[in-house]
Amino acid sequence: MRAEVLAVGTELLLGQIADTNSSWIGERLAASGIDCHFQTRVGDNAGRIVLALRTALARSDAVIACGGLGPTQDDITREAIATVMGVELVRDAVVLGRIRTLFDARGRTMAENNARQADVPVGASVIEQLIGTAPGLICPVGDKVIYAVPGVPYEMEEMMERAVLPDLRKRAGEPALIASRTLRTWGLAESTLAERLGPRIEALAEGGAGVPTLAFLASGIEGIKVRLTVKAASALEADDALSAEEARVRQLLGDTVFGVDEETMEAAVGALVLGRGWRLGLAESLTGGLMASRIVSVPGASRWFAGSVVAYASEVKASVLSVPPGPVVSLEAAEAMAAGALDVLGADVALSATGVAGPDEQDGRPPGTVFVGLAMPGRDTEAVELRLPGDRERVRQMTVISALSMLRSRLVRA
Amino acid sequence: MRAEVLAVGTELLLGQIADTNSSWIGERLAASGIDCHFQTRVGDNAGRIVLALRTALARSDAVIACGGLGPTQDDITREAIATVMGVELVRDAVVLGRIRTLFDARGRTMAENNARQADVPVGASVIEQLIGTAPGLICPVGDKVIYAVPGVPYEMEEMMERAVLPDLRKRAGEPALIASRTLRTWGLAESTLAERLGPRIEALAEGGAGVPTLAFLASGIEGIKVRLTVKAASALEADDALSAEEARVRQLLGDTVFGVDEETMEAAVGALVLGRGWRLGLAESLTGGLMASRIVSVPGASRWFAGSVVAYASEVKASVLSVPPGPVVSLEAAEAMAAGALDVLGADVALSATGVAGPDEQDGRPPGTVFVGLAMPGRDTEAVELRLPGDRERVRQMTVISALSMLRSRLVRA
Repeated sequence: MRAEVLAVGTELLLGQIADTNSSWIGERLAASGIDCHFQTRVGDNAGRIVLALRTALARSDAVIACGGLGPTQDDITREAIATVMGVELVRDAVVLGRIRTLFDARGRTMAENNARQADVPVGASVIEQLIGTAPGLICPVGDKVIYAVPGVPYEMEEMMERAVLPDLRKRAGEPALIASRTLRTWGLAESTLAERLGPRIEALAEGGAGVPTLAFLASGIEGIKVRLTVKAASALEADDALSAEEARVRQLLGDTVFGVDEETMEAAVGALVLGRGWRLGLAESLTGGLMASRIVSVPGASRWFAGSVVAYASEVKASVLSVPPGPVVSLEAAEAMAAGALDVLGADVALSATGVAGPDEQDGRPPGTVFVGLAMPGRDTEAVELRLPGDRERVRQMTVISALSMLRSRLVRA
Repeated sequence: MRAEVLAVGTELLLGQIADTNSSWIGERLAASGIDCHFQTRVGDNAGRIVLALRTALARSDAVIACGGLGPTQDDITREAIATVMGVELVRDAVVLGRIRTLFDARGRTMAENNARQADVPVGASVIEQLIGTAPGLICPVGDKVIYAVPGVPYEMEEMMERAVLPDLRKRAGEPALIASRTLRTWGLAESTLAERLGPRIEALAEGGAGVPTLAFLASGIEGIKVRLTVKAASALEADDALSAEEARVRQLLGDTVFGVDEETMEAAVGALVLGRGWRLGLAESLTGGLMASRIVSVPGASRWFAGSVVAYASEVKASVLSVPPGPVVSLEAAEAMAAGALDVLGADVALSATGVAGPDEQDGRPPGTVFVGLAMPGRDTEAVELRLPGDRERVRQMTVISALSMLRSRLVRA
């Protein structure tokens, strides 16, 4: 069973609103074991919606058309579907009655335009509207089908779960369940990771039911994500297969795997700091508070985060953190900043970052030169030099995850 | 001239990452006067990428294929384009040399896989890679063209602006120029803004060449944006029309207009602080460094920004900022924090923020309760209470722009 998504709306093509509906539908189709090979966006133009529907029907079994069911002249998905079906639109009295009732319930008068929302292609069946005024449609075209759902996300989602996905699953027979798990890594180049995982990916490609597949995705400042996906008969079976494969991948990648699914580096560090009953302090120069702001986004951060001294001006490094005179982009400054943060903030462990975000050089150092310092009990205060690629924003983001990763390594191995 | 976007990547279809690239490209195409009628997403499958490219070429003059240029076995956009062109891939020695140089510069060894990124379809020309390792491609197909750009957003955006959009504009001849300007406002409700602008929007809707149109867009934590758009024969003509309309809109909206186009509230504040030869200091609790990190994103911030004390733990508020004992979510604490930041950071003006981001209440105050303090020369230190809607992240972002807006108002009116 193959289904496509057709998102309708000129504002999507112009980039005025993000097409989150297609992503949501894609995720739900995958979870239902239904393949989705193409997703298309098209504007509010009758000829082009018809063309896009025909193109999609030629290569898939079902099309989910999303949007263009509103009351205005721009909303022409109903007409386009009727054209593709080769039938007329007929105003449905029951649907019209429901629309009137919805307006009455809100104490408003129904505009004449809204009656258009009761137009149904002959041969289509109606998905009752429970939230908005637009009903959905199930429109058979030969042995294939077009579904029409509203573009308003929560109306669309409700209708998908209640009517479209169940109908698709029924048409597909008894589909297998597809589950996936993502391992998040930091510290390996994409090519190194490819070499380590290559043989395993090839071995798994032989395939079969219950055998997972592996893929990885370079995610920039979030590192590289390794995705494990499996088709299985039940959630329990899927979970077992994913857990077994996760263990194998972790053997190949070691402790470069810092998190699973939505777990961030800052959350991983937080768990380790909290586990020791410590509080973390920061001294930030080039990151300018970015490290702190990512940390406070972790739920419960107040239990393990003291605060940060954002010492952007050199004078502040000296006066608040007691950084000695000399270049502020240096190993020595990074060490002094970490030690200063530990002291001033009354923290148990402290990270610091100083460097050149760019675009200009500083202290004779090129953009991307960054020094990260770490002060913690039972070790000498240390600092390392990094060379990071990219623009200002990217250098800052890379600095944050690199610094947190350094602390994580020390805590994992300690 | 019609161009389509083809976003390549199975992770897009599965809804694992959002397809922001297509939206960005759509917006840039519109601004260049190039029609974009369809956008398609396809997975990492050779046959289906070829099919999607052929479908797109059949109905448009140009296709921008985005993604699938990486070094792994999944990355097959190059192969698919060569198939559509009916040519071989040849490894390009110059491109390969550049990839090696990029790895050398980072002190890393190039994996054998990366050499695939130097494969170029015969007859295609290369868009040099300035950031990542993947070059872009310009691939003629009869009198049409396929562009290939990387899927990493900042690599893609740089290559689009430098090479693809200029090439498209050249092919399009002299398109009617569409120019727009965005006025950014903060502090008016959407309905108030609608009332003030309504008559003008209606008057302009009569239209005609050289007559701008007005639209506004509620942009959440960025306030409400008023967009002026005009079609004109030349950039000069467009600029005149936009400037005249901007003056009218500013009369209607007063100093709630804080910036133009990409100018942020933090940049607007920076210009005012720098104009006085001052330096700004911050004391942040619930915003956790977010205010500082937004400020250091402003180019040249080091000339007017001293730093921030992120006093997340109550002990830090007391020890570093000398906040007196008592509830830390209060007018008194906000005032003490601002005064403390002025003193500790040696700043000329200081902002503070303390409050409840949620989800739990604190000091008996519900989530969204925020106090913002302001200390500056020649005025008593002051603080105001805000009630902000939304989740943790939204409350933090609203706090930042509200605090900066408060400072801006004082400086504009002083």
